[in-house]
Amino acid sequence: MTQLLETQPAGRTADQARLLQDTLVELIDLSLQSKHAHWNVVGPSFKPFHEFLDELTDQYRDWYDLVAERLTAIGIAPDGRSITVASCTPLEQLPGGQIPDTAVLAALDERVSLVAARIRDRADAAGEAGAADLATQDLLIEVLRGIEKQRWMIRAHRA
Amino acid sequence: MTQLLETQPAGRTADQARLLQDTLVELIDLSLQSKHAHWNVVGPSFKPFHEFLDELTDQYRDWYDLVAERLTAIGIAPDGRSITVASCTPLEQLPGGQIPDTAVLAALDERVSLVAARIRDRADAAGEAGAADLATQDLLIEVLRGIEKQRWMIRAHRA
Amino acid sequence: MTQLLETQPAGRTADQARLLQDTLVELIDLSLQSKHAHWNVVGPSFKPFHEFLDELTDQYRDWYDLVAERLTAIGIAPDGRSITVASCTPLEQLPGGQIPDTAVLAALDERVSLVAARIRDRADAAGEAGAADLATQDLLIEVLRGIEKQRWMIRAHRA
Amino acid sequence: MTQLLETQPAGRTADQARLLQDTLVELIDLSLQSKHAHWNVVGPSFKPFHEFLDELTDQYRDWYDLVAERLTAIGIAPDGRSITVASCTPLEQLPGGQIPDTAVLAALDERVSLVAARIRDRADAAGEAGAADLATQDLLIEVLRGIEKQRWMIRAHRA
Amino acid sequence: MTQLLETQPAGRTADQARLLQDTLVELIDLSLQSKHAHWNVVGPSFKPFHEFLDELTDQYRDWYDLVAERLTAIGIAPDGRSITVASCTPLEQLPGGQIPDTAVLAALDERVSLVAARIRDRADAAGEAGAADLATQDLLIEVLRGIEKQRWMIRAHRA
Amino acid sequence: MTQLLETQPAGRTADQARLLQDTLVELIDLSLQSKHAHWNVVGPSFKPFHEFLDELTDQYRDWYDLVAERLTAIGIAPDGRSITVASCTPLEQLPGGQIPDTAVLAALDERVSLVAARIRDRADAAGEAGAADLATQDLLIEVLRGIEKQRWMIRAHRA
Amino acid sequence: MTQLLETQPAGRTADQARLLQDTLVELIDLSLQSKHAHWNVVGPSFKPFHEFLDELTDQYRDWYDLVAERLTAIGIAPDGRSITVASCTPLEQLPGGQIPDTAVLAALDERVSLVAARIRDRADAAGEAGAADLATQDLLIEVLRGIEKQRWMIRAHRA
Amino acid sequence: MTQLLETQPAGRTADQARLLQDTLVELIDLSLQSKHAHWNVVGPSFKPFHEFLDELTDQYRDWYDLVAERLTAIGIAPDGRSITVASCTPLEQLPGGQIPDTAVLAALDERVSLVAARIRDRADAAGEAGAADLATQDLLIEVLRGIEKQRWMIRAHRA
Amino acid sequence: MTQLLETQPAGRTADQARLLQDTLVELIDLSLQSKHAHWNVVGPSFKPFHEFLDELTDQYRDWYDLVAERLTAIGIAPDGRSITVASCTPLEQLPGGQIPDTAVLAALDERVSLVAARIRDRADAAGEAGAADLATQDLLIEVLRGIEKQRWMIRAHRA
Amino acid sequence: MTQLLETQPAGRTADQARLLQDTLVELIDLSLQSKHAHWNVVGPSFKPFHEFLDELTDQYRDWYDLVAERLTAIGIAPDGRSITVASCTPLEQLPGGQIPDTAVLAALDERVSLVAARIRDRADAAGEAGAADLATQDLLIEVLRGIEKQRWMIRAHRA
Amino acid sequence: MTQLLETQPAGRTADQARLLQDTLVELIDLSLQSKHAHWNVVGPSFKPFHEFLDELTDQYRDWYDLVAERLTAIGIAPDGRSITVASCTPLEQLPGGQIPDTAVLAALDERVSLVAARIRDRADAAGEAGAADLATQDLLIEVLRGIEKQRWMIRAHRA
Amino acid sequence: MTQLLETQPAGRTADQARLLQDTLVELIDLSLQSKHAHWNVVGPSFKPFHEFLDELTDQYRDWYDLVAERLTAIGIAPDGRSITVASCTPLEQLPGGQIPDTAVLAALDERVSLVAARIRDRADAAGEAGAADLATQDLLIEVLRGIEKQRWMIRAHRA
Repeated sequence: MTQLLETQPAGRTADQARLLQDTLVELIDLSLQSKHAHWNVVGPSFKPFHEFLDELTDQYRDWYDLVAERLTAIGIAPDGRSITVASCTPLEQLPGGQIPDTAVLAALDERVSLVAARIRDRADAAGEAGAADLATQDLLIEVLRGIEKQRWMIRAHRA
Repeated sequence: MTQLLETQPAGRTADQARLLQDTLVELIDLSLQSKHAHWNVVGPSFKPFHEFLDELTDQYRDWYDLVAERLTAIGIAPDGRSITVASCTPLEQLPGGQIPDTAVLAALDERVSLVAARIRDRADAAGEAGAADLATQDLLIEVLRGIEKQRWMIRAHRA
Repeated sequence: MTQLLETQPAGRTADQARLLQDTLVELIDLSLQSKHAHWNVVGPSFKPFHEFLDELTDQYRDWYDLVAERLTAIGIAPDGRSITVASCTPLEQLPGGQIPDTAVLAALDERVSLVAARIRDRADAAGEAGAADLATQDLLIEVLRGIEKQRWMIRAHRA
Repeated sequence: MTQLLETQPAGRTADQARLLQDTLVELIDLSLQSKHAHWNVVGPSFKPFHEFLDELTDQYRDWYDLVAERLTAIGIAPDGRSITVASCTPLEQLPGGQIPDTAVLAALDERVSLVAARIRDRADAAGEAGAADLATQDLLIEVLRGIEKQRWMIRAHRA
Repeated sequence: MTQLLETQPAGRTADQARLLQDTLVELIDLSLQSKHAHWNVVGPSFKPFHEFLDELTDQYRDWYDLVAERLTAIGIAPDGRSITVASCTPLEQLPGGQIPDTAVLAALDERVSLVAARIRDRADAAGEAGAADLATQDLLIEVLRGIEKQRWMIRAHRA
Repeated sequence: MTQLLETQPAGRTADQARLLQDTLVELIDLSLQSKHAHWNVVGPSFKPFHEFLDELTDQYRDWYDLVAERLTAIGIAPDGRSITVASCTPLEQLPGGQIPDTAVLAALDERVSLVAARIRDRADAAGEAGAADLATQDLLIEVLRGIEKQRWMIRAHRA
Repeated sequence: MTQLLETQPAGRTADQARLLQDTLVELIDLSLQSKHAHWNVVGPSFKPFHEFLDELTDQYRDWYDLVAERLTAIGIAPDGRSITVASCTPLEQLPGGQIPDTAVLAALDERVSLVAARIRDRADAAGEAGAADLATQDLLIEVLRGIEKQRWMIRAHRA
Repeated sequence: MTQLLETQPAGRTADQARLLQDTLVELIDLSLQSKHAHWNVVGPSFKPFHEFLDELTDQYRDWYDLVAERLTAIGIAPDGRSITVASCTPLEQLPGGQIPDTAVLAALDERVSLVAARIRDRADAAGEAGAADLATQDLLIEVLRGIEKQRWMIRAHRA
Repeated sequence: MTQLLETQPAGRTADQARLLQDTLVELIDLSLQSKHAHWNVVGPSFKPFHEFLDELTDQYRDWYDLVAERLTAIGIAPDGRSITVASCTPLEQLPGGQIPDTAVLAALDERVSLVAARIRDRADAAGEAGAADLATQDLLIEVLRGIEKQRWMIRAHRA
Repeated sequence: MTQLLETQPAGRTADQARLLQDTLVELIDLSLQSKHAHWNVVGPSFKPFHEFLDELTDQYRDWYDLVAERLTAIGIAPDGRSITVASCTPLEQLPGGQIPDTAVLAALDERVSLVAARIRDRADAAGEAGAADLATQDLLIEVLRGIEKQRWMIRAHRA
Repeated sequence: MTQLLETQPAGRTADQARLLQDTLVELIDLSLQSKHAHWNVVGPSFKPFHEFLDELTDQYRDWYDLVAERLTAIGIAPDGRSITVASCTPLEQLPGGQIPDTAVLAALDERVSLVAARIRDRADAAGEAGAADLATQDLLIEVLRGIEKQRWMIRAHRA
Repeated sequence: MTQLLETQPAGRTADQARLLQDTLVELIDLSLQSKHAHWNVVGPSFKPFHEFLDELTDQYRDWYDLVAERLTAIGIAPDGRSITVASCTPLEQLPGGQIPDTAVLAALDERVSLVAARIRDRADAAGEAGAADLATQDLLIEVLRGIEKQRWMIRAHRA
């Protein structure tokens, strides 16, 4: 994450970059986890879950592309390598093998809620006086709106 | 990769599953590497390379979905977790930071050639007498045709 | 509007929920009023007004879906029942029977201006220090941008 | 519902208008109820129900637009205001708050069956000798075919 | 209009054929009149009227194709030649030269109302006991629903 | 064809169900016959016939889906099994092997004319006083309009 | 065909207007003749001819709209009324009743060849020194290219 | 299944034709069974199953068209008549009347597994030394890949 | 406007280039004026005018792209800079602030008529003996046809 | 930029209007500059640059339409006239004649970076306490996100 | 056809390349022959043949692009020059001038049958033990399936 | 190129036919050359060139279809056989084997410039007094506009 462009005071850029890079890792890992679950889910609700998990994957992919390109826009090289994702993700890995649909929901709820909370904090931080980067904050809010909607949908299955 | 369905003699299934699971890991890693390069490539040919790398990513994603679902079709749970990809991939990671376009080409050539060669061997193996699974072989050949076309396109830039 | 999820301190959630639920009622009522006018408008400009009123209806429907689903995302059940809309809407009902095109414009101007002003205040309130919910605020601003554009279009007919 | 055009003997028009206006109110209320349920349904079948309820809403919207425009075609002003819907609907309101998926089905079954029965009677009445309006009857039959198909789909979940 | 197929008792076919052939002539003439007006209308509402007149033309074309093919379906050759249309149409021709938008509306109202009334009578006649042809009647009702909607739209401009 | 819902007096439902179930069998068999002919037709007009036969098949498939779902809508289970179709169809089977294009036309004319006549009678029966089911009748008329148009097209080749 | 705008010397406009108005009448009549034939053609090639005749109709409609709007562009009111078409067309009417496919081709060949020749002469005339209107000429050439292609297709069936 | 073209040694063609004709019958019957189940399935998962069964039907229809046209390509007339399907299908018929969703799954699993196994054997046979027809084999493998994916999806609901 | 390619005698190229460059400036300015009016128009016909002005803008943009690329095709660099447009345009600027719809029409009529006349002269000039460039002339005629149609539409509102 | 509507305290409106009007001028000029460069760029990377410059133009056009309509929404008439753009733009004009691809990149980098910086400041200013207009600020941030992404793409070519 | 990449043992590559290059020449020549026939066919079936010949051309173009790119994928430069096609094609040229539809069918049958047979042999050869290239073989089988379907369609016209 | 129809004096037709037939040969050869280059180009700009060459091929194919069908429209059989193209083309063949991107540009420039010049002369000739065929000339100008645009794009890469 070397700073490449002098678009802002260096400290400000570094703070924003950290918010974005951490989000990038989490969203890539969520995309891999939801795809993994898309293949391994079993149970009476297989078909709607299988499709729902694919929709989640597509959203994560769209979002992390936005996040990575925001990093480039502030002059920082995003890091989306598998080794980085695997070593930096704060998310517990899913188990191997088939996963019953109710277990998929529980696992997703936990992971999505965690990431939603972290992105909410980052969106707040990105706008903090003295170091605000409104464009970065706006992007984080956009992702936040989406992931909090996902959290509702996951939880609505479990209510 | 527990065997879930008795669709074939167990040994035959295990052999096929190994061919597919290894391919899955490589294609997921290629998708992450090409996406990483999509963000970090720089140089006079930025725009066509940036787009080319996105097309590669889309192809890897389509292919690894086919490969994973073939695993499920023979009764084996695919493993597409980030930790699995990071620890099992035979591919060298790309460097962090910006990558000049010519370096991207060199790195891609090396990785794509390696995977193409491995998939070619697997396609041969999948059809070997006594343990042939024609459907798995057909899928591997489909991916092989695609990745060998990619290899040509990458090398044509370097000729 | 029972609180269902503990996603935020309860008071904060309740405040945001009130902003959203009030907006929901107003947008549903606007959608019914613009559709009612779509059918009953008469006058030399019938065709462009008839179409314009349908476009407004579509926008209100899209917006109130977003607003209701934001309520669910913060753990609150939205209330979009006809009895709720009829009893809670702050908007004067349109008259029955045919409505001349100029009267439609006057009525729309009044109602849209009122709702625009209220949503502007809510967008401010949603971001107030101590209880800010940036995602809710962002949604309200999105609707605000749209409804203020509608207000211009309505007034431009009357200038 | 003042008579605006002398397209038919006045009594005949008034009879047809009553059939249509009552249908209009019921379909608007159904559209609001199904949308309300779309947001508030919870349970293991959340996703397919959430989508199904949206499809119902779209159908009600399409149908009530046809019904209202048939009223205009016979020279009668349709009344689609929220106050009219809330005060004239024969349908019981849904409860506030989250609604379990099975309860949604039971509530829908009751309401859709009621409206289907009423529209069936109106379609018969619209064609009665001496006051037949074939175009109005044809529209009511079109809606009847649709709503009886909905009733089957709802009941098929409950069988 | 020679009878070609023995699909029904001859008298019954001849009666239905007369209803359809008369409708065919009127709809072709309406399509030519609305297109003529599409080119010659002038006035402050030129653009929406110009477009409205084109939409009417498209509807007449769709409808008369259905009517003519219903004639073939009952074994009768439809007659859509210009000489037939010009000599059989019951509609007064539009004036030559530019036509002010209000005059276009008045002329359309007169012609569309006339044809709507005639088709209404034909739809009744097509279902009369002893000679009913339900398929022909259904088609006439379909056109009737459309043309009565056009009549409303035209009159709504003039109210 | 057990009666599942009490939507009408039982006798009325049984009568309507018989009309629909018989139509279902005929339309499924027509779809199989036209597809069979699509593959086996030979002769100078191969290409337009091959395409025409595919269009017929698509129409039969659309229609029998409507018919079967109308059965469900009146509470009766449709029976579309191959054994039912083969044993209940009133249509003579096509010969095996290649079929010259003129022979295809003759065979289609015979079969389509037979089914058209039967559906015409059923549409009449479905509306008979005392047991009328307007929605079922409307569906049968819709199919009748389509199949009588097919009959024209087939015969127009032979005139 | 009153002159409405002074866009050119009056004589020049009148000459161009005559070329266009005559073309307009011929193309409208061709559109009615080809549609009439679309319904009445019979014979072994029914299906491809039926479709071909519809494509011709669509082309005539597109072309005469261009021609009429070119008249308006030079300030002349086009005359597309059925009475004008019937009385001014130089084309022989088609016979009533069914028309064998070979007879349709012969009739089309005669009419299309006649109109093509007339438009060719008009295109030459529109560019004649002293009164050239290049835009009108360009439009006539565009129609000429199309109608001479039609002539080839018609004749190719007859060769 | 008379041999029409001498494209291969006769015995070789007859062997391939038998593989294809048997597959054709099974796929047509599966398409009728899945459609039958599409209408008659009941239970809490009605909507996703109803849609899933329609997707299966579409796949069978696509596949059996490919299979039949491969028969024509090797000079053999395919036999897709209802009487042939009913008498030759190795599949047990579904019961009449409503079918609970879990019973649908069990029935599908049994039938799809049976056909998948038979097509696997045929794909092997089609490539056997001395009588290999690579194009036929390739088609069978294509269907095999699809039907083994279906089998996974069905079983995943039951795990 | 330096000559870059020797595709024609230099004088001939320079003459053609002047015709095109002048057209380019006028069309760019018309696109800015119509867009400016799109935002500032007010009055009872706001909506259809607002849309009409956007359609004009789109046409000017399409046309000036063609004109500029024709300049490049004859080896001349087009000049589309704002300073060039502002200083070279022969068109009077629109007033600032809101513009009543009738004033917009008057202003457009004046400007479009002026440009139409100039392009007509240029189209003539482009084909003059000794220096004709048929491809350039053809492009100018294409634009002329379009802009003369615009002129009609504008004037039809004012008749 | 007269104030037309009293939607806000006058000073606040004037401040916001200035931010928007300045942005409008810059984006229009950027659209003209990128289009000018689209035509005049030369060099080995002509094709991807030619396309890239067109994509930039499209984005500027979309953005300045949003900006101008936001001005109308706050009651201020936007000024998009060529004379205004030419006299108010802070951007240096591009040179006339062909421009080598590397020079295009350098020029774009300078201009886009300048505008990005100015819009960033305006987005900050639009939200300043006491005069915040959240809707205007949100729009500026939206443009900022886009233009900072453009800046990255331009610079990535030059790295 | 110089070997450019060392992807396989040289002899194996040369063998595969010969199979592909020969196929390339034949498919290009077929595309030119079918297009030539598309223009020159005459006779009563002109329209369906004219369209059929265009569909064949499109298929040959798609196939030869795949074949040529497979050559590049194995490191060999494809040769698609007109001189190569004309001198290497094994196909007899079509006659000049108009060609009756039956003669077109006879000529196509001969040429397509010849190429189908050659590609069948090549597909066998491409998989032969010791030099198998499964990806090349798979492509040849794909083309074989298509061209054998064409052969059926051509012959079905002649049966 | 036998004259088939007497649409013009024979000499005039023969002259026009020669202009078109020569153009046909050149455009077919250009399409084969650009496709050949599409496969064999190598170098740093591979991807944009590879795509550009495919776009050129598509344009040549569209154009030569228009040219050939214009020949048929004047009663002359076009000759598009490979032997004709190879023996009549005035264009030098491209070399075999890989071609560096700069060499592709040089070769294209030479060939496209040559054909553009020849078509320019033919467009002039087609309109010459005494033998003018305006429709043929218009088509040649249409192709000329396109190919001169191609020439610019090719040269812009080389400037």
